[in-house]
Amino acid sequence: MMYCISVSHKMAPVSVRERFAFREEEKKEFIELLAGREAITGIVILCTCNRSEIYVSGSKQAVSELQKELADYKNVRLEEVLKYLNIYRGESAIGHLFKVTCGFDSMVLGEDEILGQVKEAYQMSKDMKTVDYEMNVLFQRAVTCAKRIKTDTNLSKTPLSIATLVANEVFHFKHGGDCKKVMVIGMSGKMGTTITKNLVSKGGIEVTGTVRRHNDYLTVNIEHERVKVVEYKDRYQYMDDMDIVISATLGPHYTVTYEDLCGALASKKKRLFIDVAVPVDMDASIEKIDGVTLCDIDYFDTLTKNNTEIKLRELDLASAIMEEDLDSAIKEMVFHPYIHRMDELKAAFSGKRLESLLFRVRDQLNSEELKVILKTLDGLESWIKEG
Amino acid sequence: MMYCISVSHKMAPVSVRERFAFREEEKKEFIELLAGREAITGIVILCTCNRSEIYVSGSKQAVSELQKELADYKNVRLEEVLKYLNIYRGESAIGHLFKVTCGFDSMVLGEDEILGQVKEAYQMSKDMKTVDYEMNVLFQRAVTCAKRIKTDTNLSKTPLSIATLVANEVFHFKHGGDCKKVMVIGMSGKMGTTITKNLVSKGGIEVTGTVRRHNDYLTVNIEHERVKVVEYKDRYQYMDDMDIVISATLGPHYTVTYEDLCGALASKKKRLFIDVAVPVDMDASIEKIDGVTLCDIDYFDTLTKNNTEIKLRELDLASAIMEEDLDSAIKEMVFHPYIHRMDELKAAFSGKRLESLLFRVRDQLNSEELKVILKTLDGLESWIKEG
Repeated sequence: MMYCISVSHKMAPVSVRERFAFREEEKKEFIELLAGREAITGIVILCTCNRSEIYVSGSKQAVSELQKELADYKNVRLEEVLKYLNIYRGESAIGHLFKVTCGFDSMVLGEDEILGQVKEAYQMSKDMKTVDYEMNVLFQRAVTCAKRIKTDTNLSKTPLSIATLVANEVFHFKHGGDCKKVMVIGMSGKMGTTITKNLVSKGGIEVTGTVRRHNDYLTVNIEHERVKVVEYKDRYQYMDDMDIVISATLGPHYTVTYEDLCGALASKKKRLFIDVAVPVDMDASIEKIDGVTLCDIDYFDTLTKNNTEIKLRELDLASAIMEEDLDSAIKEMVFHPYIHRMDELKAAFSGKRLESLLFRVRDQLNSEELKVILKTLDGLESWIKEG
Repeated sequence: MMYCISVSHKMAPVSVRERFAFREEEKKEFIELLAGREAITGIVILCTCNRSEIYVSGSKQAVSELQKELADYKNVRLEEVLKYLNIYRGESAIGHLFKVTCGFDSMVLGEDEILGQVKEAYQMSKDMKTVDYEMNVLFQRAVTCAKRIKTDTNLSKTPLSIATLVANEVFHFKHGGDCKKVMVIGMSGKMGTTITKNLVSKGGIEVTGTVRRHNDYLTVNIEHERVKVVEYKDRYQYMDDMDIVISATLGPHYTVTYEDLCGALASKKKRLFIDVAVPVDMDASIEKIDGVTLCDIDYFDTLTKNNTEIKLRELDLASAIMEEDLDSAIKEMVFHPYIHRMDELKAAFSGKRLESLLFRVRDQLNSEELKVILKTLDGLESWIKEG
């Protein structure tokens, strides 16, 4: 049977999660340590910033041995370990693996970074030859299921956060040149920082971030080869060069006014202005200027609302896919021992009368179970008749 | 399939229940009327003061035909009929029949008067030859189940009402003579009336009830050969003759005082005094008189409390019995068609490989169903090996 012990963002604060985290060498060391135990026939360690999970398969003792070894290895008292652990056994461990792999257990529902992390965790154990038949089947099926959800639904492709939506807007903006030049007004703010990080996560984008001068220092919070920091008061000097200008300050004043922008822009190329500030940062009249398009916060709010609806729909779809694949995986686990017992079963049933078997079945089962048997009998009969 | 339409104390007020009530001749007439319909192959009408229920078996149309006929017969608009009806179909109709027959659907939980009423209703239809195989099996099994609960549990033998408990106390009182003489002080009150009715429901008890004189009339509310009515002010005159004296008035004064009782009792025989009034009717000092035992309301409150606990325990037991018998009845219904199909099934499965059947089963069923099949297979295998 498979077991999983999990310290996740759902149960434990980051300080506890850190204590149960594993560096790469530690993972290998701990896997080798567990592989030496008789009760344990398979081990996978999944460690991300949100969770430390150890999957083991083996006999009934596997999970208690794992707990003891973990307490020893991490130098934590066993009671302390148990306090923050979630333990899953058998089908609930399989269900948990599927949920985690498909991103249903993540902070951002349906995110697919976790899929890569599960694949890597499984691959490490596979390379170390510490996965048994059961774990091989289950991890492969969980990964396949997550891929199916990724391909067949838009769950992971439907962002809800404004920062992601703004970055997507920039990514989709078509322009002539090689490299998109983007100004982020208010880069040191929370929203400005997140947007900038999202932007530079893809190539082909150069960010000019404006920050304010405090006591002769510029607050520079992002250091990146494609991020240039300029002073807020000088923003108009750089604007003509920009393809996209994003403003996300907390202040009550316009950061871009019609008059100043008219004076700043020499060329009339196509430009996108994005205002995600509340109250607004950009004077709505700037749209009168040739080439300028303005997206305001309402636009993104609508996107978020629509995406929420899409996400809920896609979530239903993804859940159905997961349930199907999970059930199929459980079936494989349940059925597997019978493949080896087939000859034995054939011998036992050989020459037995269907009638006496059926009456026995009726007397031994409850009505729900009996219905399953009779439904199955009907199904087989039609199947045989169809030929 | 069996269906049941029910107008019961749970759904409809007494005025509505009366409109759907059936006198004996009406029952016969309506049963004959329904028996003429093609869709209906079985009919039982159960009509008590708390419920009118019609059970029919037959095809899918049975229940809608029943509704139309009922509206016609009772001269009520169909919509009006539907408003107060509960309709049960298939397994839920079987479950309802069992609940009703076992007294689980009664006003007094677990009472067994209903069992006799179900038996009579079934017998009438049986005599009229309007019960089919399904109804025969189900009614017989429901009745058997209710009898089993009556025999194997104390559900119906555990009264909670003060009036019943008082009557039981009288019934259990041992004395020398042939006939117990019981005085009920305050016989015309609600409690006095109920107690008196309970008392005369058994033989060997004579009741002397005291009532007050209003405008030269005595309020006599019970006429019975074994109930004698006397005036309240004359009560002490009769007391020496009594074995048991019960007092249940609403007034604030003692109805039996120590001094007056001393004066009234000539013989010192064993006597039981029962005081169920709040505030108390009997002076506690009367226990000092030779032969007098006094039971007060606290005694009955304790009995009620204990009986409530017993009743809850017996209820669990009774529910378990009912679930078991109900499941068995449902199994019989589900399995019955297969008895006739046995040869056909044998022919279909003859020479088929267990292996291919099992793989087919695995691919067609979900994991829960597959587990039932495999568990059944295991069970049969052990049975064959043992046998």
